[in-house]
Order: sequence, then C-alpha cells, then structure tokens
Amino acid sequence: MADFIPTDPNFRERVAASFDRQAFLATIGARMTVLEPGYCELTMSPRPDLCQQHGHVHAGATTTLADTAAGYAAYSLMPAGSAVLTTEFKVNLLNPARGDVLVARARVIKAGRTLTVVRSDVVGVTGATEKPVATMLATMMCLADSPDPA
Amino acid sequence: MADFIPTDPNFRERVAASFDRQAFLATIGARMTVLEPGYCELTMSPRPDLCQQHGHVHAGATTTLADTAAGYAAYSLMPAGSAVLTTEFKVNLLNPARGDVLVARARVIKAGRTLTVVRSDVVGVTGATEKPVATMLATMMCLADSPDPA
Amino acid sequence: MADFIPTDPNFRERVAASFDRQAFLATIGARMTVLEPGYCELTMSPRPDLCQQHGHVHAGATTTLADTAAGYAAYSLMPAGSAVLTTEFKVNLLNPARGDVLVARARVIKAGRTLTVVRSDVVGVTGATEKPVATMLATMMCLADSPDPA
Amino acid sequence: MADFIPTDPNFRERVAASFDRQAFLATIGARMTVLEPGYCELTMSPRPDLCQQHGHVHAGATTTLADTAAGYAAYSLMPAGSAVLTTEFKVNLLNPARGDVLVARARVIKAGRTLTVVRSDVVGVTGATEKPVATMLATMMCLADSPDPA
Repeated sequence: MADFIPTDPNFRERVAASFDRQAFLATIGARMTVLEPGYCELTMSPRPDLCQQHGHVHAGATTTLADTAAGYAAYSLMPAGSAVLTTEFKVNLLNPARGDVLVARARVIKAGRTLTVVRSDVVGVTGATEKPVATMLATMMCLADSPDPA
Repeated sequence: MADFIPTDPNFRERVAASFDRQAFLATIGARMTVLEPGYCELTMSPRPDLCQQHGHVHAGATTTLADTAAGYAAYSLMPAGSAVLTTEFKVNLLNPARGDVLVARARVIKAGRTLTVVRSDVVGVTGATEKPVATMLATMMCLADSPDPA
Repeated sequence: MADFIPTDPNFRERVAASFDRQAFLATIGARMTVLEPGYCELTMSPRPDLCQQHGHVHAGATTTLADTAAGYAAYSLMPAGSAVLTTEFKVNLLNPARGDVLVARARVIKAGRTLTVVRSDVVGVTGATEKPVATMLATMMCLADSPDPA
Repeated sequence: MADFIPTDPNFRERVAASFDRQAFLATIGARMTVLEPGYCELTMSPRPDLCQQHGHVHAGATTTLADTAAGYAAYSLMPAGSAVLTTEFKVNLLNPARGDVLVARARVIKAGRTLTVVRSDVVGVTGATEKPVATMLATMMCLADSPDPA
C-alpha cells in the first residue's frame, strides 16, 4: 500500500469542517474515528431507525458510510481550496449489516489530479470479532478552486 | 421494454408490507408512488437533515431511494413466500440532487429465477421540469421460501 | 433522450481515424455500423476464437465491444484535438452471447466537460429477433489537447 | 485474508480443463501462472494486436484477463460437477496497460453457495517494478450440476 503525502498541511481541519457540514451524517450517527493521508475510517452504531425489513442496517445507510469514508480518504489528499464530489461507486453487499458498530475503512488506490479511486470496506464489529458487510470501489472528483461554502 | 407477468397475484400487498417494515425509509421520508409488475417508483422530498456539505441531498440518501425502488421492482415479480436481497449495485451521480422532489424509477431489465437485474434512475423534479440526478444498475437476489418476518 | 450537438463538425473523421488505429478491434472483428452525435453502434460476428468454455462469445470480447461503443459515443461529442479514455465501467451479463451477430449500442446519458457517462447495451441478433446479452454503465474522460497519435 | 478449503480435491484439474477450453484466452495469449484455493493469477504479454489507439493494451483485453482470473479464483472453491458464470463486474482503469507482462491476481472476498465475490487486480510488470493497471470487483455464480461440456 502506497504512503501518501498530503499537499495541504491543514487537511485535517479542512476534512473535519466539511464533515461537520453534512447534516445527513448526523442523521445516521456517523462519526469520523480515523483520518490519515489517503485513509479514512467512519463508525456508526446500528439503530432501529436505520434498519430495513429484516432488522439489519439498510444497505443505503451502509453505503452512505462507505461512500463518505471514501470521499474523505480522497479529500485528505486534495489541495486547499478544492471540493470533492463522488462521481460513481459500486458496492457489493457481503453479509447482513449488524454488530455493535459498523466501521467503514477507505483507502485511496490511485490519486490523480482530477480523479481519485478509492476502496472502502465496511465491517460489522461485535466484541472482538469483525465480519465483512460490504466492499465498495469509488471514483472521487476534485473540483479545484471550489471550496466548500463557509 | 418487456411487459412482465407477476407470478404472485398479491404482489402489491406483499411489497407494501415489506416497504412498511423498513424504518430507514421512514427516516428519509421515502414513499411509494407507483408499483407495477417489474416497475417501482419512489418519491422523497429534500430536507435539510438529508443534505451533504453543499446543501444538496446526500448521495447516500439518493442511493437509498434508487436501491429501494430497484429492490421492489424486482420483488414485484418474485413468488409468494420469497424475500429480496440487494447483492450489488453501481451508481453514477449525474447532477446535484435537488428539486421539489426526487423520484426514483426502477425497471427490471432481466428477471431470472435467482437473480434479477434492474435499472433505476433518479430525477429531480422542479415544477414541470425534470433533471437527471443518478442512474443505477443493480442485481437483486430472490431468497425462496424466506418470507419477510411478520 | 436528449439530442446532442457535436462541438467538432469533423467528429466522424476523428472517430473513424481513432477506431482504425485500434488493432485489438480488428483482432475481434468489430466494425462500426452507426455513429451519430452521442450514439455509437458496433457489430461483431461470433467466431470460435472469440469463445469461452461453453461455446459462447467470451464476456471479455462482449465487454470490449460495449466499452468501445461507449467510448466513441462519448468521443463524438468531445472537441477537436482531444483524446478519450475509459475511466471505469460496470457490466451485467444477461444472457449467453450468441447470435448471427452481436451489436453494441451506446448512448451518452450525461456529457460533461471532463467526464461523460454512457450506457451501452449488447444484444445478440438472430434473424429478425434480438436478445439482450449485456448492459454496461461507463464513465469516459476527455483529455483536452491530447490528440491521438498520427 | 481468509484461507479457503476447497470442496473438490480435484479442483486444479477441473480449472485447468475449463481454462483450456476457452479459445479466446489462447487468442489473447493468457496463461495461468498460479492457482490456489480462492486465488488465481493469470499472465499475458502485450502484443501489437492487443492494443488500442495509444499503443497500450486495450481495456477489453485487460478486462478479459481480470475477469477470467476472478472466475477461476471462484471456480476453485466450487463443487465438482458445477459450472461458473460471471454475472457482473466493475473495473476501474488506473494506469496505461503496459509492461513486459500484465498479471491479473484475483482473490475471493466472499464465497457463498450461489454467489462468490472476487477482487481482481491487474498490474504491469517491467523488470522488477510493478505498476497498477486496473482493479475489478466481480460477482461469480455457481451453476450446480452443470459441468462444462467435455
């Protein structure tokens, strides 16, 4: 796995400020638990209002976690003054989304000037055991000189 | 576009009962506006608590709408006593998710015994105009003899 | 379906010249049968050397046809002096790839300045009947001021 | 990474026999260089007749290599008397496909009774260095009691 050098030394503040502006992440209770250059981990706790008809977390909530982790893994490497957009992703659902917490771990595979490709894996953590829930492959786009609104 | 003959004459009740058990759909305010054999339309209204950092509906909420419409388009053709699972999907985000309402329209492309392939398009509707928001290609799996829990 | 206005009046010559430089398309016997702004149709004839273990055309050959049609549907709308690159695609295989000919029909869904999203469907044509073989969703990238090599 | 126990002790012969029946793999010069339970590596050498307009290996040929490696990684775990089908895949193209050889390495992520999810990465190897070319996420289907034709 390549190590990445961030171009913006203040990437942590930039990412945190963007995260805090995403109301939907508060709605689903996502929190950022790790951020490194090219890597982001988000955690959420299953709740009844996030579930589908079989009592597991809805694939849409799981996908939101994976997509958001992927976006911030990519955004950590983008320059100051830029914005990040998801252009597309594909997700395979591997096992029912359950556990004490769900954790999405996203890692940049290829950081280009315009497009960044990210892999994002979601696991369900119960006690000391982890079970794969979903795996995502996503493409993120850098919009230069398009800072997030204040 | 092929016309589909449902194998379960009570598919509307079966789909509606399943939809009503999905708490996350209530959380995001999704409602089923059309259901025909092999076709499902869901509608949601943008709200601040569904938005991302630029003030548009979060890709995760849009994807939830598209995935759920795809699932019920497929489930409408599945036999009584079965359950439906999303195995995977890919979504391309085309334009910011905004409008008076977002509408997901899902249509079965290929209904197999085990796997059903569905296309699901999300548009933003503002007055009389529509703008494409996202397009999804999804694979749904039929679990025979696995009815949703009562 | 939107109608597209090409920005380069010589798009047909530009696309044809690019197509002719792709040796792999000659290897699989692909030919361009229709080109319109934002639309491209390619045709290939099943041959034993294109087949997989069950005697149908290999998914890789089918995918090559779909991807190439998608690329030229996008490239038809790109400016003179540009090059086109596939950044990613997803394909669902719907039925065995067989018939008198396989035809890929690609249509631009969204033409952006940098990225163009294309849907590409492959059918098997036998006499007067068509059967769906595969459906693809692809993202193409425009490299400005990067003409194909002469 | 999980270790997998093959259910068919003769999986190597079964996979090799299937590979040898795929004429398209001979056409592109693919050879199987590693096979372990849940893992498959294929190698091909760039040739002019496999290239696209910029002189790199065509994405369709690269995809064929990745898809085939994914299929045999999955098939290694399937029972005797079964057949394997690709149901869908998504590929991101990361860098131009070039090198002394291209190598696809496919590893099963989740082996289910019916569906198996596989990740397949293609690298270009030049001397002692490797460069990522493509990454694929694929779903393979097991057809029980459907042996390949003799």
